[in-house]
Amino acid sequence: MKDINKIVLAYSGGLDTSVAIKWLKEKYNAEIIAYSANVGQIGVESWDLIEEKGYQTGAAKVYIDDVQEEFVKDYVFKALKTNALYEGKYPLATALSRPLISKKMIDIAKENGADAVAHGCTGKGNDQVRFDVSFRALNPKIDIIAPLRTWEFKTRNEEIDYAKANDIPIKATKDSPYSLDSNLWGIAIECGVLEDPWNEPPADAYYWTKDPADTPDKPLYLTIGFEKGEPVQIDGKDMEPVNLVKELNKIGSEYGVGRIDMVENRLVGIKSREIYEAPAAVILTEAHQHLEDMTLDRETSHYKRIISEKFSELLYYGLWFSPLRSAIDAFVEETQQQVSGEVRVKLFKGQCTVVGRKSPYSLYQYDLATYDTEDSFDHSSAEGFIKLWGLPTQVYGSVKGPNK
Amino acid sequence: MKDINKIVLAYSGGLDTSVAIKWLKEKYNAEIIAYSANVGQIGVESWDLIEEKGYQTGAAKVYIDDVQEEFVKDYVFKALKTNALYEGKYPLATALSRPLISKKMIDIAKENGADAVAHGCTGKGNDQVRFDVSFRALNPKIDIIAPLRTWEFKTRNEEIDYAKANDIPIKATKDSPYSLDSNLWGIAIECGVLEDPWNEPPADAYYWTKDPADTPDKPLYLTIGFEKGEPVQIDGKDMEPVNLVKELNKIGSEYGVGRIDMVENRLVGIKSREIYEAPAAVILTEAHQHLEDMTLDRETSHYKRIISEKFSELLYYGLWFSPLRSAIDAFVEETQQQVSGEVRVKLFKGQCTVVGRKSPYSLYQYDLATYDTEDSFDHSSAEGFIKLWGLPTQVYGSVKGPNK
Amino acid sequence: MKDINKIVLAYSGGLDTSVAIKWLKEKYNAEIIAYSANVGQIGVESWDLIEEKGYQTGAAKVYIDDVQEEFVKDYVFKALKTNALYEGKYPLATALSRPLISKKMIDIAKENGADAVAHGCTGKGNDQVRFDVSFRALNPKIDIIAPLRTWEFKTRNEEIDYAKANDIPIKATKDSPYSLDSNLWGIAIECGVLEDPWNEPPADAYYWTKDPADTPDKPLYLTIGFEKGEPVQIDGKDMEPVNLVKELNKIGSEYGVGRIDMVENRLVGIKSREIYEAPAAVILTEAHQHLEDMTLDRETSHYKRIISEKFSELLYYGLWFSPLRSAIDAFVEETQQQVSGEVRVKLFKGQCTVVGRKSPYSLYQYDLATYDTEDSFDHSSAEGFIKLWGLPTQVYGSVKGPNK
Amino acid sequence: MKDINKIVLAYSGGLDTSVAIKWLKEKYNAEIIAYSANVGQIGVESWDLIEEKGYQTGAAKVYIDDVQEEFVKDYVFKALKTNALYEGKYPLATALSRPLISKKMIDIAKENGADAVAHGCTGKGNDQVRFDVSFRALNPKIDIIAPLRTWEFKTRNEEIDYAKANDIPIKATKDSPYSLDSNLWGIAIECGVLEDPWNEPPADAYYWTKDPADTPDKPLYLTIGFEKGEPVQIDGKDMEPVNLVKELNKIGSEYGVGRIDMVENRLVGIKSREIYEAPAAVILTEAHQHLEDMTLDRETSHYKRIISEKFSELLYYGLWFSPLRSAIDAFVEETQQQVSGEVRVKLFKGQCTVVGRKSPYSLYQYDLATYDTEDSFDHSSAEGFIKLWGLPTQVYGSVKGPNK
Repeated sequence: MKDINKIVLAYSGGLDTSVAIKWLKEKYNAEIIAYSANVGQIGVESWDLIEEKGYQTGAAKVYIDDVQEEFVKDYVFKALKTNALYEGKYPLATALSRPLISKKMIDIAKENGADAVAHGCTGKGNDQVRFDVSFRALNPKIDIIAPLRTWEFKTRNEEIDYAKANDIPIKATKDSPYSLDSNLWGIAIECGVLEDPWNEPPADAYYWTKDPADTPDKPLYLTIGFEKGEPVQIDGKDMEPVNLVKELNKIGSEYGVGRIDMVENRLVGIKSREIYEAPAAVILTEAHQHLEDMTLDRETSHYKRIISEKFSELLYYGLWFSPLRSAIDAFVEETQQQVSGEVRVKLFKGQCTVVGRKSPYSLYQYDLATYDTEDSFDHSSAEGFIKLWGLPTQVYGSVKGPNK
Repeated sequence: MKDINKIVLAYSGGLDTSVAIKWLKEKYNAEIIAYSANVGQIGVESWDLIEEKGYQTGAAKVYIDDVQEEFVKDYVFKALKTNALYEGKYPLATALSRPLISKKMIDIAKENGADAVAHGCTGKGNDQVRFDVSFRALNPKIDIIAPLRTWEFKTRNEEIDYAKANDIPIKATKDSPYSLDSNLWGIAIECGVLEDPWNEPPADAYYWTKDPADTPDKPLYLTIGFEKGEPVQIDGKDMEPVNLVKELNKIGSEYGVGRIDMVENRLVGIKSREIYEAPAAVILTEAHQHLEDMTLDRETSHYKRIISEKFSELLYYGLWFSPLRSAIDAFVEETQQQVSGEVRVKLFKGQCTVVGRKSPYSLYQYDLATYDTEDSFDHSSAEGFIKLWGLPTQVYGSVKGPNK
Repeated sequence: MKDINKIVLAYSGGLDTSVAIKWLKEKYNAEIIAYSANVGQIGVESWDLIEEKGYQTGAAKVYIDDVQEEFVKDYVFKALKTNALYEGKYPLATALSRPLISKKMIDIAKENGADAVAHGCTGKGNDQVRFDVSFRALNPKIDIIAPLRTWEFKTRNEEIDYAKANDIPIKATKDSPYSLDSNLWGIAIECGVLEDPWNEPPADAYYWTKDPADTPDKPLYLTIGFEKGEPVQIDGKDMEPVNLVKELNKIGSEYGVGRIDMVENRLVGIKSREIYEAPAAVILTEAHQHLEDMTLDRETSHYKRIISEKFSELLYYGLWFSPLRSAIDAFVEETQQQVSGEVRVKLFKGQCTVVGRKSPYSLYQYDLATYDTEDSFDHSSAEGFIKLWGLPTQVYGSVKGPNK
Repeated sequence: MKDINKIVLAYSGGLDTSVAIKWLKEKYNAEIIAYSANVGQIGVESWDLIEEKGYQTGAAKVYIDDVQEEFVKDYVFKALKTNALYEGKYPLATALSRPLISKKMIDIAKENGADAVAHGCTGKGNDQVRFDVSFRALNPKIDIIAPLRTWEFKTRNEEIDYAKANDIPIKATKDSPYSLDSNLWGIAIECGVLEDPWNEPPADAYYWTKDPADTPDKPLYLTIGFEKGEPVQIDGKDMEPVNLVKELNKIGSEYGVGRIDMVENRLVGIKSREIYEAPAAVILTEAHQHLEDMTLDRETSHYKRIISEKFSELLYYGLWFSPLRSAIDAFVEETQQQVSGEVRVKLFKGQCTVVGRKSPYSLYQYDLATYDTEDSFDHSSAEGFIKLWGLPTQVYGSVKGPNK
């Protein structure tokens, strides 16, 4: 085993990464730097407490880093501008946070002269790929340690025993039947009864969103203002990115909006059943898409749909720091210059519906579209257009002959 | 003007095509064969009456043709198997009926020795393209007449005057503020206040679906059975295609499911604001997609998403009878061989949610997916996988250097 | 007919556009501004003479505009960086010049207060589309006149008669059997015996390139230096864009390089048989592609191949000034940041072969690639990689069962 | 280590797989079944000798299997119909043979009750992936052994020592500086001086093809007849698939045709420099593409270019037995129904040029294409076509305003 002296560990304060602090420290006889990023996750009662626990568990240094603003501006909004939904459904919340956390850890490793980074991902998920690939992209020479892929503990109970034996402070909470990851852009929920895809997710699987049946009987209308593809206002009020997303998560949850239930394809070659809650992501993606429908021309709009599939794949597959992601980003940025305007959405019983859109750059032109007397469309052009548009098919038809 | 003796006209019994019978007959001194396809459209009280009116108006022959079964089997289900949604939203109801009607008309023209076909489409819509291109693909030599692109009437009232002057029977109904087209796969609604995309569609714009606010307070669960990509059962009961679609339209409407509101890009180069009602299409497309998520492997599933965009474009653009549509069809059919199983959906207050799916061909494997003790996934493979997966990005990172 | 006072005409000095000056002037009683762009076309003996002829024929103003540098830098090199070849073969020479000429004409129209622009394209080619669409994109309100689509002359001889009758100076050259268009990026040749795609192009169809059989018996080696995707050197000598392209056209022609023979799909719905000569385009595209093979990572490289098809379509289809072209441009520019280095090509008997490539940003890493003792590739990673890579196919295989 | 009793080994008669027979037999105490597929590879003097050597080395059974016809019909021609070229250059010869050999081995394993298959691929190439993934797709439960990934020998000399010590008959040939793989569809050459991509491949790197400088001074013309996308004739003479390919390899080699030199992206994440010789593949792919240019309509042709990229990726990546490959196959087959006709090619000094094409299903229509008096194209349609074609760009231009 290579000699390793200092390790930066992605630390959440939970059981796995708490045990990891101790385990890494002993196994490598190394100094452990615990890094905790605040990306708006749920369940954190006190960041101070996490810091304290980190030190108690044996970390030489504990970083508590509020990266919410950077997360929303430089990661989430890029995905939003692309309308990124993996397999048409998942807004990529976890996938978006991993590259940011990796980047921060590589920076901290450099500052502290650490020779390794570590994370608490298992060997069958997507996150290990996102961490490892990001780490190597940013520092090809750094060592990567993934204790959960290799350590001796087979069950959660074995970890708990180890924690007790080593005076690692752990919460005496009862075991949740689900596995969770969360940030401002959404919550991912898996395991337990969800592992049978025929089971409807039970009520206790959801953390943010109300059951649509328990939501208000009157719809709520919101107007979201966009500027170059980014949301900047709710109901005419300017809002900072982080607050805007938080606000929509709160409102959306009240109306039961943002629940997603899917069987998805992991990068590691298996299918898994996942539940997501993503009120802000669902509302904003829907609104943004409708604003694009109004402000992008047909060819750009159709091609961007294809590009969006690739972008979502890259993110899901852990390739944020790949040159292709940058190139697609440049494409998307160029398309967003006129995606400004307002979108009116209606939240009701779990559903978010766009009911109005307007833009100073609208390519919808009333005088071209109307069937009213103001119609300015040149109807006589159609005949020539259709003749040439259909000519290849016509020639093909004539060659095949009438009895084909 | 070329000498034209017999014209097959797409005839709906409405004002435009009634006037067209007379107008064509006089203008071309030709025999008019009126063709009416029953594709499950709304608003038809009696097909006998339509037939009668056709003869009264001067048609030499009137065909009333129930093509619902062929429509669903050979057109609608092909679109469903492709998950075809134009611009991610519109299930292409009208676009699917046009090629079928065109084909029938070309057949009838051949049987009757007609030298022209005619339709009642205007010069700025998509349907003129779908008709004309289909006609020419199937019979490159036939003449095509589109009276509404060329005739002298500027307004509806001028048409009514002409009808009255020529004893054409027209319904004395008050003018609807909307323009409609409908069939089993959905209703398209446009014009009137909808022409301002900022306006929410008013209650009277919808024909089938109840306002979600007025629907039952308890969800309805349905189980839809699929066989090779086609729906064959509801709640365990075998159903014929046409009945199955009708049943879902009925049930879906009761739950407010299937409303679509969008600004879309027409082929003729303009944007238009369209409202659709498509309960069966929305329910079945959602269910089918989720069944594919379970039964298609990742690469096929992702690539089919791209293919689906192209297929939707081709349909919307009137290219049903193009060789590329056939080739994509062959691709899709090949993928559907194992898309069999059951999908459980929940209808509630306007929303259709998939809550369960199972299949004898499921590629979701519990023993690979579970985090439980039955886990059979080889965790140790991950490290090697990730190293090679990320190698191009790593090399790229190393070449750019640390200060990029 | 709308009142038109001043027309900017794309003027080449040839028969069609000379006749057009006179014809437009008379028909519209308008002032004609003749615009001639020097894009490096062949057959121009003297630009002064063209200017003189323009005035003689009745133009109120004649612009002779050397746009070669702008053409190469802002149009040709963008295509080169994309490896743009329409249908895998045609380097798009003519298609690239049309938007530039359109832009210049719209500028001149504005400066001169002209209310119309005109060109000498026929009604079945691609160039009319490229001009018209570019004109309207840049000035949606300008009038466009295409005399050759509408005027009364049915044959070349009728034009000549008109020219003689109106004292229009025309060259007394014998009629070429071919129709030509040319600029720095290539010559397009059509008509005559070429209209039978079974005929091999005869020797007299080519203007620049020697028959490979008549070229030197020894190969020529050239080293082309690239900087961010653009060629900047030949054999270590810095060269300006225009000179570099001209030099490669000259050298390539000596070695018979750059002949292209294809049946292509025009935008207007027909197929045509085209011959091209494009020595510089062929050499540079080949070299650039090979440099990318070395400096782009796999995912970027593969995706860019798809993007390149779209870019070529857009150019060919006259959509240079569309927002999708700009977005693709942004994508491509982002990919070119490290496409710097040298490529060694061998010209011999009509063929250009890349025989060497090197780059400071090479992603080809000897220590990873070699089978020699310096091999640094981690062979043990392969097994894990392959297991997960093949897992979806394996699961699929297991579900289908052994007797599928 | 799992108990393994019988192993089917891919056996070439060369050093690696000869040593593997012995090594596997000893290590696993298992019966070795050696399988040698005749795919038209070079360098085999006598299949009888290979069989004999196999037994001498310790195989319990040796299969010598001539699969050339199946290889060409069911693998090579599928790739040809798709115009499959990995990264635009490599005709995938080796990649095509691996799935066939894998399939045969799995069949033999079943017949013989073997519990494992083995191959002689190293841990950094593509072929290990192609074998392993194919094996697992066809029999998810079979064990796979790759001795070269794991055994103790570090160098070729160590293997030779082992062979001598174990009386394994090996040829006393001097070590080639290159590593080779070959079959009817081409030869792959790597290693040695080729590992520096700046080096031009030396003369001794090529096995089949003559240096273009040493080829005849007169071109050779060949006419290749195709039937539904497959080549069936040379110069009017019917030929069986295997003979046709062999004949074109022979003729092409005489004219120096088919040399390919590229830096390519391996699946395992590295770039490698490869030289290929593929005369038949180059001639047939070029001819087939040109026949498609004449017989496929524009939309099919353009989309098939994209599909072809994916197909080539799948093949290169070892995913022949994936469902996506089957689906793409169905797409391609559907497109080939009218790809029949003749293509005339000219071979000269290393280059293959298509100089003529004709087909009973040609979509090139002289009367539409000609500028001669027989022109039947409706020029007046162009204006309407262009207006609507350019309308989205025009509206976009008008919204951005004149000073954008």
